[in-house]
Amino acid sequence: MSETPEFPDRAGLQEPSGAREHAARAAERDAADPLAAIRDRFVLDAAPDHASGDAAVYLDGNSLGALPRTVPGRIADVIAREWGELRIRSWTESGWWTAPERVGDKIAPLIGAAPGRVVVGDSTSVNLFKAVVGGVRMAGKGCTEILVDATTFPTDGYIARSAARMTGLAVRPVEPARIADEVTERTALALVNHVDYRTGRLNDLPGITHALHSAGALAVWDLCHSAGALPVGLDAHHVDLAVGCTYKYLNGGPGAPAYLYIRESLQERFESPLPGWNSHADPFAMDPAYVPAEGIARGRVGTPDILSLLALEAALEVWDGVSIEAVRAKSLALTDFFLECVDAYVPPGRARSVTPFDHRRRGSQVSLECSPAAEEVMDELIRRGVVGDFRRPDVLRFGFTPLYTSFADAERAAWVLGEVLRALPEVESGAGG
Amino acid sequence: MSETPEFPDRAGLQEPSGAREHAARAAERDAADPLAAIRDRFVLDAAPDHASGDAAVYLDGNSLGALPRTVPGRIADVIAREWGELRIRSWTESGWWTAPERVGDKIAPLIGAAPGRVVVGDSTSVNLFKAVVGGVRMAGKGCTEILVDATTFPTDGYIARSAARMTGLAVRPVEPARIADEVTERTALALVNHVDYRTGRLNDLPGITHALHSAGALAVWDLCHSAGALPVGLDAHHVDLAVGCTYKYLNGGPGAPAYLYIRESLQERFESPLPGWNSHADPFAMDPAYVPAEGIARGRVGTPDILSLLALEAALEVWDGVSIEAVRAKSLALTDFFLECVDAYVPPGRARSVTPFDHRRRGSQVSLECSPAAEEVMDELIRRGVVGDFRRPDVLRFGFTPLYTSFADAERAAWVLGEVLRALPEVESGAGG
Repeated sequence: MSETPEFPDRAGLQEPSGAREHAARAAERDAADPLAAIRDRFVLDAAPDHASGDAAVYLDGNSLGALPRTVPGRIADVIAREWGELRIRSWTESGWWTAPERVGDKIAPLIGAAPGRVVVGDSTSVNLFKAVVGGVRMAGKGCTEILVDATTFPTDGYIARSAARMTGLAVRPVEPARIADEVTERTALALVNHVDYRTGRLNDLPGITHALHSAGALAVWDLCHSAGALPVGLDAHHVDLAVGCTYKYLNGGPGAPAYLYIRESLQERFESPLPGWNSHADPFAMDPAYVPAEGIARGRVGTPDILSLLALEAALEVWDGVSIEAVRAKSLALTDFFLECVDAYVPPGRARSVTPFDHRRRGSQVSLECSPAAEEVMDELIRRGVVGDFRRPDVLRFGFTPLYTSFADAERAAWVLGEVLRALPEVESGAGG
Repeated sequence: MSETPEFPDRAGLQEPSGAREHAARAAERDAADPLAAIRDRFVLDAAPDHASGDAAVYLDGNSLGALPRTVPGRIADVIAREWGELRIRSWTESGWWTAPERVGDKIAPLIGAAPGRVVVGDSTSVNLFKAVVGGVRMAGKGCTEILVDATTFPTDGYIARSAARMTGLAVRPVEPARIADEVTERTALALVNHVDYRTGRLNDLPGITHALHSAGALAVWDLCHSAGALPVGLDAHHVDLAVGCTYKYLNGGPGAPAYLYIRESLQERFESPLPGWNSHADPFAMDPAYVPAEGIARGRVGTPDILSLLALEAALEVWDGVSIEAVRAKSLALTDFFLECVDAYVPPGRARSVTPFDHRRRGSQVSLECSPAAEEVMDELIRRGVVGDFRRPDVLRFGFTPLYTSFADAERAAWVLGEVLRALPEVESGAGG
């Protein structure tokens, strides 16, 4: 091998122990990766805009997925032809009216749902409200409480409290691992995150769902951080209601509409707290009396947001020929490899993983507690082209999107993290307010 | 004048009485129209796709506004650069995070609101729920009912009933003209349409608002069919809460996000039933305890739908240098002229206006009851390039968007309507089930 560095941004820097070996293994794994070619379906290798001069390593797909190449042309046509030329006719002729169910059916196989069980529209928070209120209305008369994942992404807790206030129930926060022990016959439902946004912990969806059902309660799952990263199996595990966003591992674009899943056998009992005209059995009857639509259309509310919905539809084409099981296998290999590289490259004691090592409890991100100065560390990482994100007070999050993240990306991210931490003075932690 | 027809689609057809005069007056009025040049800001004169061979006369802007020329380029940049290259950084660097308030401030002057009183996001139905529940929570303790415009667009009634069910109140439908007489000290609020979607009747916003306030009730207005077509004056008339869509006279695109207005003095008392994380005082604190944001951000819910929101923002540029008073003056002139032409061209007894002749009670559409066969009449109009819409059982709706509708459009629409009605056999009405 020549002495010329393989990595321009490493020239003149001392290499941490094992770096050559890890880089070589990354190259081998990428060469053998059956999903490697899927990366070309995304816009990722544009002109660099950071200090190192390399293309960015994008490890924030768990916050905003990268742009699929199918989207720009599709939306240009939606705007110029469907809106600009056909105008109102597109509601029927371009299939706008039925897009919420049609796009729902395209998400369905990724989360283990049969057709007719997923509808797309509104934000995750709005869908949480539909799911929690709808669930409470299906629950037994004597129910007095809703359990909420104590480590939940905050909006789930806020919305659950609002739903509880408006239905006369109480909210009780419970650690997901404790739900099986805490559920009682007075529990209407539990709202749980499939993957914890902060730690990347994967909660036991089959086990918790089963425990809830055994106590007569419903299981409502938030799939924001799991859908598109690992198999969910909603139908197989008899989940009652679920919601999720589409702008993370589903790459639907910033603020793309969320979705609502309703188990088939519960659909006819679902009473939406947001019975907008799109959920009516005959919307254009303009009937003063509300009659809910049959099936999953009952989860619709108002006029669907067509530009965002059709961008999402185009984005879902990247899944053609991809199995979610292959995605899961690569996700675990990527996060394993990143943790190994972090272990090799990062100065001891400077960053500690709070993501479970156990594959059965790991989502598709790695969260490192890094104290002090986690925010400055992430800022410097981003400046050097490694894009993760920071969550207060001290967490560095790195999301791994198997459709476009390579093993070389994982190795480089860990290498740059090591460099950044070595360059930053080690400050005593625990001080200050 | 030459014998060559000025209107290719009229060649060989018998001209109704006064047609030459009306056509000449349309041309004069268009030549004198101070808003005539604004039409060039829209994509309207694309290749014809209907039988007559002329560009379409688009009179359905009260359902879906035409495409502003500013939109395609802006959205191409949002997708390719802001999403595709900057990705997650765009939430701050491209101003995505603050778009709901920023775009709200751009709508505000069109509806007579100062900055900081309008926030954009979610559908109209979802905003109706926020407004009605928020209003009930501000109302006096002894209130037992919500009044709803008896002729309302159905979603308003459905959502008001859901809000009432969840807050323990009753809903009472009342004709808008009767609200001043029907409001009592037990009325929490009234939800009223500014312009009736079916008839185009303009309700008396200042008078009804004043009557509600005199009884201690709040006024909640639905502006879907008035915003962008006429002055609303929310601040001036002390309206409490208002909602509206942005895809009609505001031309934001199919399913573009709606908006919520909250009167400044009520903002600190507004308690959203949908307290998503975007409405938190410090969203990125990820605080398990909900603390509402100050100001209009309290009306936000989840992550904003960026593609649709920024398409709307670009669409609002067509208002640069346009006064809503000039729009109103042209709107009334257009609808007056259309009614005149209908009177001249349409066979007697075949179409009757249900839109008020009184300017003080007219919105920006003309609705003609046409029985029998209204649906077939509209289908044939559309086939011949005159695009309005049909509302069951017997209404033909023609929307006039002063930014792009010409007097020639109005004349041609009436002319084609006359032709279509003369060509269709007159059938006895009142038969059938």
